[in-house]
Parts: sequence; C-alpha cells; structure tokens
Amino acid sequence: MVTEKGTISINTENIFPIIKKFLYSDNEIFLRELVSNAVDATQKIKKLSSMGQFDGELGDLKIGVSVDKEAKTITISDKGLGMTAEEIKKYINQIAFSGAKEFVEKYNEQTDKSQIIGQFGLGFYSAFMVAKEVEIITKSYKDEPAARWFSDGSTEFEISAAEKTERGTDIILHVADDAEDFLEESKIEQILVKYGKFLPVEIEFKENIINNPNPIWVKSPSELKDEDYIAFYKELYPYGEDPLFWIHLNVDYPFNLTGVLYFPKVKQDFQLNREKIQLYSRQVFITDDVKDVVPEFLQLLHGVIDSPDIPLNVSRSYLQSDGNVKRINQHITKKVADKLHELFNNDRKAFEDKWESIGLFVKYGIISDEKFYDRAKDFILLKNIDGQCFTLEEYKTKLEANQKDKDGNLVGLYANDVEKQDSFISGAKKREFDVIVFDDVLDSHFINAIESKIEKFSFKRVDADTFDKLIDKGLKSEVVLSEDEKKKVEEAFKEFVGTNIVQIEALPVDEIPVSIVVPEFMRRYADMSKVNGQGGMFGNMPMMYNLVVNGNHPLVSKIATEGNENGLVKQLYDLALLSQGMLSGNALTQFIERTVGKL
Amino acid sequence: MVTEKGTISINTENIFPIIKKFLYSDNEIFLRELVSNAVDATQKIKKLSSMGQFDGELGDLKIGVSVDKEAKTITISDKGLGMTAEEIKKYINQIAFSGAKEFVEKYNEQTDKSQIIGQFGLGFYSAFMVAKEVEIITKSYKDEPAARWFSDGSTEFEISAAEKTERGTDIILHVADDAEDFLEESKIEQILVKYGKFLPVEIEFKENIINNPNPIWVKSPSELKDEDYIAFYKELYPYGEDPLFWIHLNVDYPFNLTGVLYFPKVKQDFQLNREKIQLYSRQVFITDDVKDVVPEFLQLLHGVIDSPDIPLNVSRSYLQSDGNVKRINQHITKKVADKLHELFNNDRKAFEDKWESIGLFVKYGIISDEKFYDRAKDFILLKNIDGQCFTLEEYKTKLEANQKDKDGNLVGLYANDVEKQDSFISGAKKREFDVIVFDDVLDSHFINAIESKIEKFSFKRVDADTFDKLIDKGLKSEVVLSEDEKKKVEEAFKEFVGTNIVQIEALPVDEIPVSIVVPEFMRRYADMSKVNGQGGMFGNMPMMYNLVVNGNHPLVSKIATEGNENGLVKQLYDLALLSQGMLSGNALTQFIERTVGKL
Repeated sequence: MVTEKGTISINTENIFPIIKKFLYSDNEIFLRELVSNAVDATQKIKKLSSMGQFDGELGDLKIGVSVDKEAKTITISDKGLGMTAEEIKKYINQIAFSGAKEFVEKYNEQTDKSQIIGQFGLGFYSAFMVAKEVEIITKSYKDEPAARWFSDGSTEFEISAAEKTERGTDIILHVADDAEDFLEESKIEQILVKYGKFLPVEIEFKENIINNPNPIWVKSPSELKDEDYIAFYKELYPYGEDPLFWIHLNVDYPFNLTGVLYFPKVKQDFQLNREKIQLYSRQVFITDDVKDVVPEFLQLLHGVIDSPDIPLNVSRSYLQSDGNVKRINQHITKKVADKLHELFNNDRKAFEDKWESIGLFVKYGIISDEKFYDRAKDFILLKNIDGQCFTLEEYKTKLEANQKDKDGNLVGLYANDVEKQDSFISGAKKREFDVIVFDDVLDSHFINAIESKIEKFSFKRVDADTFDKLIDKGLKSEVVLSEDEKKKVEEAFKEFVGTNIVQIEALPVDEIPVSIVVPEFMRRYADMSKVNGQGGMFGNMPMMYNLVVNGNHPLVSKIATEGNENGLVKQLYDLALLSQGMLSGNALTQFIERTVGKL
Repeated sequence: MVTEKGTISINTENIFPIIKKFLYSDNEIFLRELVSNAVDATQKIKKLSSMGQFDGELGDLKIGVSVDKEAKTITISDKGLGMTAEEIKKYINQIAFSGAKEFVEKYNEQTDKSQIIGQFGLGFYSAFMVAKEVEIITKSYKDEPAARWFSDGSTEFEISAAEKTERGTDIILHVADDAEDFLEESKIEQILVKYGKFLPVEIEFKENIINNPNPIWVKSPSELKDEDYIAFYKELYPYGEDPLFWIHLNVDYPFNLTGVLYFPKVKQDFQLNREKIQLYSRQVFITDDVKDVVPEFLQLLHGVIDSPDIPLNVSRSYLQSDGNVKRINQHITKKVADKLHELFNNDRKAFEDKWESIGLFVKYGIISDEKFYDRAKDFILLKNIDGQCFTLEEYKTKLEANQKDKDGNLVGLYANDVEKQDSFISGAKKREFDVIVFDDVLDSHFINAIESKIEKFSFKRVDADTFDKLIDKGLKSEVVLSEDEKKKVEEAFKEFVGTNIVQIEALPVDEIPVSIVVPEFMRRYADMSKVNGQGGMFGNMPMMYNLVVNGNHPLVSKIATEGNENGLVKQLYDLALLSQGMLSGNALTQFIERTVGKL
C-alpha cells in the first residue's frame, strides 16, 4: 500500500444541523448575531468613508428591527456596506469564511480592531435556529445591482436580482412554526435590550431607539463626573441603590479591557445578588456569568467589563486555562486593591463608614486568595462595639496596654451577636477590655486568616471563659468559700449539668452568680462547620459548656451554708441558661410558671 | 442577473477549530468519545458474529486503555470491527459522515439500535482537544491489510500500511504540551470511572477492569432482589446511607427509558445534595445535571436514568421544547406517584415512618406542580405533636368533633417550632385541641397549597391568638375585672408595648397572666418572605404582636387594685416576651439581674 496524503473533508449536510442547533446554547442568540452583523456593516462604511474610500452620503445610519406578525417575519435592516452578488457567494455561501477577518487584513494599518464585531459567516447561520426560510436583500456601496439570497434551511440556496435602491442589507427571517413566540414584539424588544443596550450604532424598534451607543466605559475618565457614573449605574440597574464608589478600567496592553466596576452597598443578607457584572465584547452583551473572568470574591461587584480578548463560546476548561483570562483576573484584583488603598488614604472617615460593605469584599478576598492579604493588610479594619475602627497595626498597639497575657500574647475579644452576648460584653466593659464585633458569615474564616498571619495575636469570644482565663495575666484571686463549701456548691450544681464541668471562680461580688461559657476552640469548630454547610458530627452534637459559679456571690454562699432552699440552685442554673439563650421548650415554660408563682 | 442555485459550502480550515474546541464543553470528554467508539466497534463485531456475517473467533473483547508517560501517549485499543484503508477514508476523513448511521441502515431489521453508540465521525475528532497528533492503527475483520492513519491536527492526513495482525483498532494520542495533565494515570482512571463505570464492554486499565458491564438497570426487575438494588446503590454512592425504597423504570414506547430511582433518607438540612441522579445514554455517563429531564421536585432523588432518546450536546432551549423530554418528565412523575400510592396502600405503618423523607418530595411536588396534588391527595400525611399521622380526609373527620367554628369552618392548629411554642401547645392540650407539626422549610407554602384545595378548612399557628379566637365557637366568657379595672390594667401595660395592642381576655385562672400572640396573616407573610429569600419590607419590619392579658389571673387583679407594685407589670411583660423568645440583649441582662435580686 502506497502512502497517501489528503485533506480532511466535511460533509456539509451533516455538519449544517450542528452549526444551526449546537453552536449556541440559546436560540435568542440569533438576534444578537444578526444585529451585530448589521452594526459591523455600518461601522465598516463609516470607516471607509473616513478613510476616503467611500465618498457617497452616509445618511442616517440607524439600524431598524421590525416584526410582522401577519407575514410571520422578523426583519433586520442596516444602511451599511451592503453586498454584491459576488460577495454574498463569498461571505454567505461559504460558511466560516470570515468577512471580518479579510476586512481587517486589508485595512490593517488604519483599522481599529475593536470596531469589527464577530466573524461574519457563522453568526448569520444562527438565523436558522428560529427561521425556516431566510432572505437577504442587499445593495452594495459599490456601483452594482442589488441582489437577493434565499435559503429554506437546507444547504441549497438561490441568488437572484433584487429591487433595492438604497445602500444596505435587509435580513428577513420567515419564522419557523415552533419559534412563533419570537413574533411577539415584547419578546424581540426584551432580547434587543438585553444584548443591544449599548451597541455603538443606534438601533430602532417600534420607532424608539433602544440603545445608548456611547456608554461611559468607552469614554475617558477625564471627561466624566460622579453624576455620570451614578446615572450609568441607574441605567444598568434601575432598582439598585446608589453604589458606594467605582473603578474605571482601561487597559490596552497586554490585553484589551475597558469597563466600570461599582462597589454596591451590601446588606447582611447578601445571598440576593440580582445585579451582576455584565460582560460585553465590543459593546455587545455576552453574559452576566463572569465566573473565571472575575475573581470569585469580586463577583459581588456590579458594573460592566468589555473585552474583545476574552474567548467566547468556548468550552469552560479552555477559558480557565486561557492566559488572557488569567491576566484579566489578576489585573482586576490589583485595581480593586489599589482603589481601596487610595480611598483609605484619602478619606479614612468615608472608608470606615463604608466598611460594612467594603469589608465583605476584603474579607472574602483574604479568605479565598492567599496573595490578597498582602495587598489589603494596611486597610483591613476591625470595628468594636462602640463603632470605633482600627487597622491591624493600630489594634495591636491598643491591646498592648491591657490585653496582653503573661506569655506576651495579645488577646482580642469579640462578640458575634451583640444582643445575645450582652451580659458578657458588660463584663468586658467593666474591666476596660475592648470588644470587636465579628458578626458576618465570613468572620469565623476571617479570624482564622488574621491569626495565621500575625504572630502572638489571637481572638477569643467574649463568652468563651471567665475574663481572668481569657486573658491570663498570671494573677490569682481567692474565693471566700472553704474547700468543703466549694465541694458542696459543686455537688449542688452537678445535678443539673450532666457531663459538663462546674467551675467555681473568684469573681466580683456584684457579678451574676452563675453563668455559662463555651470554650473557644469548640465553638469555633462548630461555627466553621456551619459556614461550610456541614451538619456533620459536630453540628448535631449538643454543645459542651462550662458552668461558671461565682464563688463570691452571696447567693452562692447561701447555697454553701443553707443548701438548695426553695429550688434556688435550679433557678440560678435556669437563669444562666437563659442568659446564653439555652433555655427553651418545656423547661422555659416551667421556669416562667415558677417565676410567676414567686411574684 | 440570472437566478443561480447552489449548495452552501463549508470551509474546512475554519470549521475545524470549531469542531475541536467548541463542540464539547469539557476537554476530558475526548476519552468518553474514544472509548465509546471502541465499545461501538466491539458491539458491532459481536452483532455480526451473532448474525452469522462473521465466522472468525471473537476472542477476548476487552478494551484496553493505557498511558505512556515517557512517550507522552494515551492509547485506546479495541478488538472490534476494525477498519480497512477505504473505511478510514470514508469514516475518518469525511467528518460527520456517520458510520453508525450507515451500519444501522444496512442491518436495520435485525439491529437493536441501543447497541450503537454515538455518531462515528464527530466524536473521534474530540481527540484533538488534548492531542497534537493522532494515529490510528487498525485491522479490519475483513481479509484486508492493516492500515495506519496519521494527522498532526491540521486538516492534512496521511494513510499508509501498518504491521498490525490482530483484528481491531488502536487509537494513539500524542498528548499536546498544554494537556500533559492527562498523562497522569490517576486522572485517566478518574475520567474512565466517571464516564465508563457501566459501559457494556469490559474496559481494562492498569490490569483492572474498571467497569460493571451489566448494571441492574439493564436487567429485568423480575430477576432482581432488594439486596441487588441496595448493592447497586452503594456502587453509585459509596458513602450514602441506605435508600428508603426505589422505582425501576422501564419504558419502550413512545420513548426508550430505563433506570432506577431511589428515594433517599432526607435530613432536615437537605441543601447538601452531593448524590445526584446520573444520566446515561446507552450505558455511557452523560451528566449528573438532570435539569429539564427530571421534574424539579424529584431532582433530590438518587439513581440512574438511561435513555438514547434524550438529545445530548444540544442547546438547553432546544431540550426544553423537546417532546420526548417532556414525556419522560411526565412519565417519571406518574411512576413516582404510583409507587408512593402503592407503598401507602400496602404498608401504611412503613409509609408513615418514612414520611419525614417522603413528605419533602410530596410537598415540593404539590407546591411546584399543580397536577401533582391530584395524584398525591390520598396519601398526603399530617403528623401531630404526638407523632400520629392522618390523611387529609381523616384529619377533616377528626376536626369535626372539637375544632369547628361557629361558621362551620374546620380549624387546624399547628406549631412550627415545638420547643419555642411549648407553652401554647400545653394550652392547646388542656383544651383537647390537636396540634400538627409543620416544621420544615416548605411547610408555609404547603399549608397555602392545602388550604387552596380544600374548602372551609384552614390552619392557624397555635400562638396566633387566644384559643377562643382561633376557633371561634361563639361562646363568650366574662372577665372578673370591672370596666375601670380593665382600663387601669390596659394603661399599665400600654407603657411597654409601644404601638402594639393590649387585649384583656377571659382565660382560665391557672393560665399564664400575660402572653404574646402574633396574628396568623402577619406571621405567614413574614414566613413566606423568608422562604422566598426576600428580606424586603416585611422582613426588616419589627413583628407586630398583641399582648394578651389574662383578666382572670390573680396577679392581674392585683395590678387592677394595687397598681404596679415592685415593677410587677414590667416583670410580667418580660416573662411574656421571654415565652416568645423576644427578650434579648440588655433587656434580658437586666431581667436576669432583677430576678437574681429577688431571690
């Protein structure tokens, strides 16, 4: 057998359905493709005119879209370049022969690539996703007769002469029976607005211009005022609250990227994220799923990104390994960090006021991106229960004075529920300890991240133990009870606490006689499990706790001498549970009845 | 201009990258496609042999997959049909000329379609997603010389003679530099297991057979025992708990569908849904995203569905409008309802025991699918606080005796948190009212659905008002207080409740002096908002409530005569808040200190 060489051929009849049905994930895309082609043709005639290659009248260049429900047609009309019969044969009959590519090559020196939308041939055929027959009526800017192209969706076509006298192209879709919902004007309008809201040529539908051809991201920041950015935000998200601030992106090298990212005001229940970043390619809307392009922790930002360099309609795994996408990702992260640093330096007060929203991004960034901590460490803020904010360095200095233990470790105290931990917070205040509020869902991870970055610095929740033990300064104070009395008191409470520990402590006389503390490590593990959505082992386990008995309280002395008169022990134990939100159900009902009975 | 007709042509050079990169969403798919082709070739030789068209030895038909890290190759070898040089030209060089199609047409009468996997030509080219060069070495079952095909990923190929003496095909991929992670054996094994776990021909990798060629869904239910179903469940989900029961699907007409769906034990925190239904096509794993194929409310089921009739690799919108997909959807719903009905009829006790899990599907079904209520209404269960279960009909009968109001409406009482509503549940028990537990996330919607289906039947939460008002039987009882005293009491409490209402009621002497109720409609609206994730207006509004004062309680009489001695009013008000879990923060700290002070 002789070695043979050859070229792989493609059987048109079998590949055609694939192009028609498989290539796009959503059939409404046809309108995006056809209108983009119309924009493309319009940009080209403008270009030729500006270069002196076309000296006729440009005229009104708006693109028209119309629906004829009777005739069951959708028509897209432009006054662009138009095509001669020869060009139809070249650009339409030979699929994937990219007209745009040839145009760019020809006028390479003088042409701004960003003005050419899409690859001519392929997008056109998406028309057959909704049309059973497609007609093209077109007249070129060159002095040649108009032509008509017709195909019934098979691979057969027909070209003939047409009547058209005005320059430009009309694409007429004869809508297929199973796509008649596209004959609803409301549906077409909605699709036009979705994909074409910021197309660079005016699009007319039902006598209205549906787009803004000059969105702010194509303008230079120097010609824009704050009002412009806010107005544009409202254009993107009519129901959104005003954004906190924004970043205007403008990169030429090594990739092309423009856009405006807005920091929204974040509410605590931020799972609702209807306003998303929108991805455009040369002002054509592509998607609001910016996974892979924008780092995960910045996907809560709002705004637009426009880049002709992000590969579209390509497999996800390809996108993930694309070099441009990675660089874009890093660029956005850096820009955001720079902007935050600038805000912090320029107006710390304003920065602090916005920390509730900003903090979410910063914390998320630190947790999910190892390197982001270094970018952010100078403007990470800790906010205490009085609303004062500290940078990490400032807070370390603050703790030096009163919250350093005998081994030189700085111990921060925090509350994650100011309401629930009120009695413990009062206790900390009496001792002039500062209490930081860590009450959002990311905080348990955030605390871990900070502790791992800073040496000899840790956080403990305000109700994790008695204060003497939370910040162990090595001072010992004594209980007024004798050892026997201590034992008696311990026995009395042991009855109620099951396997939990009773610890008799030397606390001030005026502090609550019995309280419940939950060791930091246990609680932290349980919190993390919750955030991770693991109901698992720990989640279902009853929380272990320690019962702290104030050995210096008169009621405790009373128990030591008189024993459990009138159910005093049970009542004190219930009050301790109550203070930790642990008294419920029938035990609570009985406590209330008992308490009413004593009134 | 003369009308011209012609055929649309496709430019191979431009379309090739699309086939290579765009057609599949994930590059690991190449292995699924190539192994499927190998299975296909093997099934065909078996078919030919069984029909007497091939009388050679079949031999060991295992398919081998191997990785050579040194040579940077992945090889897939089968002992199937093989190809002649002519067949290579036909099936490989002409893309999308479907070999499978021609085979089926030729042997149409005798061939079981389900044995033919995929469309030959296209899948093969997915090899170029990871390979820079691809070789085929193949020897046909026909008496012709072996052939070698080679392509470097351009559209050029080369065919020459090969040495191979054994029947079958080796596909050798020379892995591209940016895909070298596919040279890790662990990765190849993982992909093989993912897609090929149940392929119908043995697949060997590293001297192990990685698949089970006869999974239970291809067998007849009559040859299977419970142990077989449970063992298969463990094969699918090694870490899953035993399923509750299962449904074996087997449909020939009007579509092909086999499969086994398992009802899992559902835990309350069911957001964790790692075990998903797996979708197969002729034993090739396709996806575990069964959206559109399986009704939303049944997507929490586990198991497998195998259908050659579900269009794959097609746009989502196409899938949604596909007739087969709709019918499959309906069929599955009906089968599930039938199975549940059967279980209920055959062993009600067992059905009740599993209601916690089953109920979730049933409730979800009723809420999301209008028609499902009719299928399910006879086996919907309501479970009361004592664990007794009632069908809707049974419960209506039960309510007739004691929970019918003066207008003939049946009033069901429910608790959604047995712990929190303990004092109200005690109150209902005293009056011999039944209390249903509605404590899962779907219940607020479920209650609405039931109420809309059954006339003169409604549910009220046990703490929505006093019992006399919840079930208004038209009986009036009198308060011992005079009008003046009432006014005095009302004034005393008004001080604490802000804009909320104080209502003085004639309650039994031994009931709690003050309590808080929240009107049903308000609470329900707030609950629904929470389920829908709307923090909105209502979510952020402080809950309005009514303060119920027991006009017959001695402490209330004391207030009427002696006034607010020792802060009695405040203490009673706090106890009412406490009973509803509404006392917190500093108010709770103070309550505790005050109560300690009185001990």
